[in-house]
Amino acid sequence: MARALQLAEQGIYSTRPNPRVGCVLVNEAGAIVAEGWHQRAGQGHAEVNALAALGGSAKGLIAYVTLEPCNHTGRTGPCSQALIDAGIRRVVFGMQDPNPRVAGSGLARLRDAGVEVQGPVLEAGCRALNPGFIKRMEQGLPWVRVKLGMSLDGRTAMASGESQWITGPAARADVQKLRARSCAIVTGIDTVLHDDAALTLRAGELQLPEPQCSLALANPPVRVLLDRRSRLPAGSRLLSAGGPVLLVQGEPETYADAAVPYSHLSLPEAQSDGGDLRALLEALAARECNEVLVEAGSRLAGSFMAAGLVDELVLYMAPTLLGSSARPLLQLPLEQMAEQRKLAITDMRAIGGDWRITAHPVGD
Amino acid sequence: MARALQLAEQGIYSTRPNPRVGCVLVNEAGAIVAEGWHQRAGQGHAEVNALAALGGSAKGLIAYVTLEPCNHTGRTGPCSQALIDAGIRRVVFGMQDPNPRVAGSGLARLRDAGVEVQGPVLEAGCRALNPGFIKRMEQGLPWVRVKLGMSLDGRTAMASGESQWITGPAARADVQKLRARSCAIVTGIDTVLHDDAALTLRAGELQLPEPQCSLALANPPVRVLLDRRSRLPAGSRLLSAGGPVLLVQGEPETYADAAVPYSHLSLPEAQSDGGDLRALLEALAARECNEVLVEAGSRLAGSFMAAGLVDELVLYMAPTLLGSSARPLLQLPLEQMAEQRKLAITDMRAIGGDWRITAHPVGD
Repeated sequence: MARALQLAEQGIYSTRPNPRVGCVLVNEAGAIVAEGWHQRAGQGHAEVNALAALGGSAKGLIAYVTLEPCNHTGRTGPCSQALIDAGIRRVVFGMQDPNPRVAGSGLARLRDAGVEVQGPVLEAGCRALNPGFIKRMEQGLPWVRVKLGMSLDGRTAMASGESQWITGPAARADVQKLRARSCAIVTGIDTVLHDDAALTLRAGELQLPEPQCSLALANPPVRVLLDRRSRLPAGSRLLSAGGPVLLVQGEPETYADAAVPYSHLSLPEAQSDGGDLRALLEALAARECNEVLVEAGSRLAGSFMAAGLVDELVLYMAPTLLGSSARPLLQLPLEQMAEQRKLAITDMRAIGGDWRITAHPVGD
Repeated sequence: MARALQLAEQGIYSTRPNPRVGCVLVNEAGAIVAEGWHQRAGQGHAEVNALAALGGSAKGLIAYVTLEPCNHTGRTGPCSQALIDAGIRRVVFGMQDPNPRVAGSGLARLRDAGVEVQGPVLEAGCRALNPGFIKRMEQGLPWVRVKLGMSLDGRTAMASGESQWITGPAARADVQKLRARSCAIVTGIDTVLHDDAALTLRAGELQLPEPQCSLALANPPVRVLLDRRSRLPAGSRLLSAGGPVLLVQGEPETYADAAVPYSHLSLPEAQSDGGDLRALLEALAARECNEVLVEAGSRLAGSFMAAGLVDELVLYMAPTLLGSSARPLLQLPLEQMAEQRKLAITDMRAIGGDWRITAHPVGD
């Protein structure tokens, strides 16, 4: 199963809206005889790819698969039936299908056909592969990851807005990977107006091996711009390259010179409790977005946090002090210590000259 | 020499105002035959302690010592002569005496007496043992370490001042070690008024083995209070226990109920360029303070930083968000990105549920 997890990770940048899944076929002697992973939607699932890699008979083999084999006929046939047809003797699965309406039906079909079923095995690792897919299936919302660059004293920009290049090139390359694994990148109009941010994937910075690099670039995330007052100027870099754009504008604007496909999304008025942001996330989930990356300034990022809509914070901390006049990490006014937002830091590592902190909000 | 460094570290909490020094005696076969380290001022230096531990003849032995053997007669005789008298054949030293007026004279005496002299060896490690002693000898100023507890968003307290227990018990125990290795702890009146801070060493939290624990508690750092307007109330915990107190008061107050010795220090008026803080540090150096720990709020800590007087920042970062209304890490108003204060992060580690970041200001 550990090997199946490694295989699944190879699809981290390309399977969306599908989950990342890996599959290993093992013989009676415990030796791996074939492997497969899901590359992109519309193409073979991990189990089918592993059977195809095997070529010959799968009779009597054991299949290790990170997710319960599917039981529906979508763009490909049901994997549970494919495993039965191939003569697989036993299926070891990592986690059940996260969609509560179908969970267990793939396993049931296997059992009904006389296949031994065992699991869940290494479930935490298998769930960690697909935080967005799982959350969307379970709650109808995407996994929201907020990325911010900050100084050691927790500041994201000078009071003037001056902010570019707080962190170094290694951190920027790392952010490329966060973008590539996301279905959508959400930003605010201030960020675009101030930096003319394009929020694109760049092959040179992405630094991925093949086939991951080509797969990622072939299927870039949708860039979502919150622009209630329709201030996005024609000629913005956002509209010049990098894949589709979704504009949240009060008065939908037309951009004749746009070089990328763009569309509009209508949302309720901005609400102090973040109801509009929740509506945005629901709309993105309805468009099959699993992981959403918020790359915005302290105000919009703070609004997501204040509304309790953040699943993961990724902070790139540069070894510098920007001082007490500079902009806060998050625009998040709290009065009492009892209102503090506790987090669990799950990862801390050096990224070039900066440090990356990964944290998750936790209850009290 | 690596072993001599380990020995020297055992004196980290107790040798002040002297440097931490370790010594190893090695025979022709390369085997260690005796070890010594300096425990406290007025008692034997590392070389003398190693010779005493040996008991018998040191004729033909090699001495590894982390610091050039002293050449003066203070509370103990010159170590260079003691090594000569004992018949040591060769001295390997870690670093020269940092006092530019005496550097090399101990080595010269050894050479004049026919002792082989070799070094410096592992000089960076030997210098790291004694940042305060070295800076005081070289520059007439102590090593200034600023300790702050902060949230992940770089905040030290709520706007109201509410701040206790941001970080956990392991971080607080770690701060005890910072206090114990310091000659002086500097704080401001606001911290004392708000928290009734005592800034003492507590055996239970210090968590040191013997003899380090007893040595540390027997010689606590002086606690220095900046209290220009003489606001320290009678009955403050600062004056009830924990060793000597130095009061910087405009109008020196008398505290009849003080349970600890206290004295007054006169300083120039507060200056916007931090000239008064520099005068404080010079006064502390004149009192043989090597390492000074600043445990204060964001205003006083920020003043030290703004004046360029900080050698080391030790930040205990708790996994929580205090929000954008809360107090900054350092009161340090900067306008332009070009004014940012760059740091080198030299250590980052988990301390219980918090993270400790050690950083040093660097030039551009």
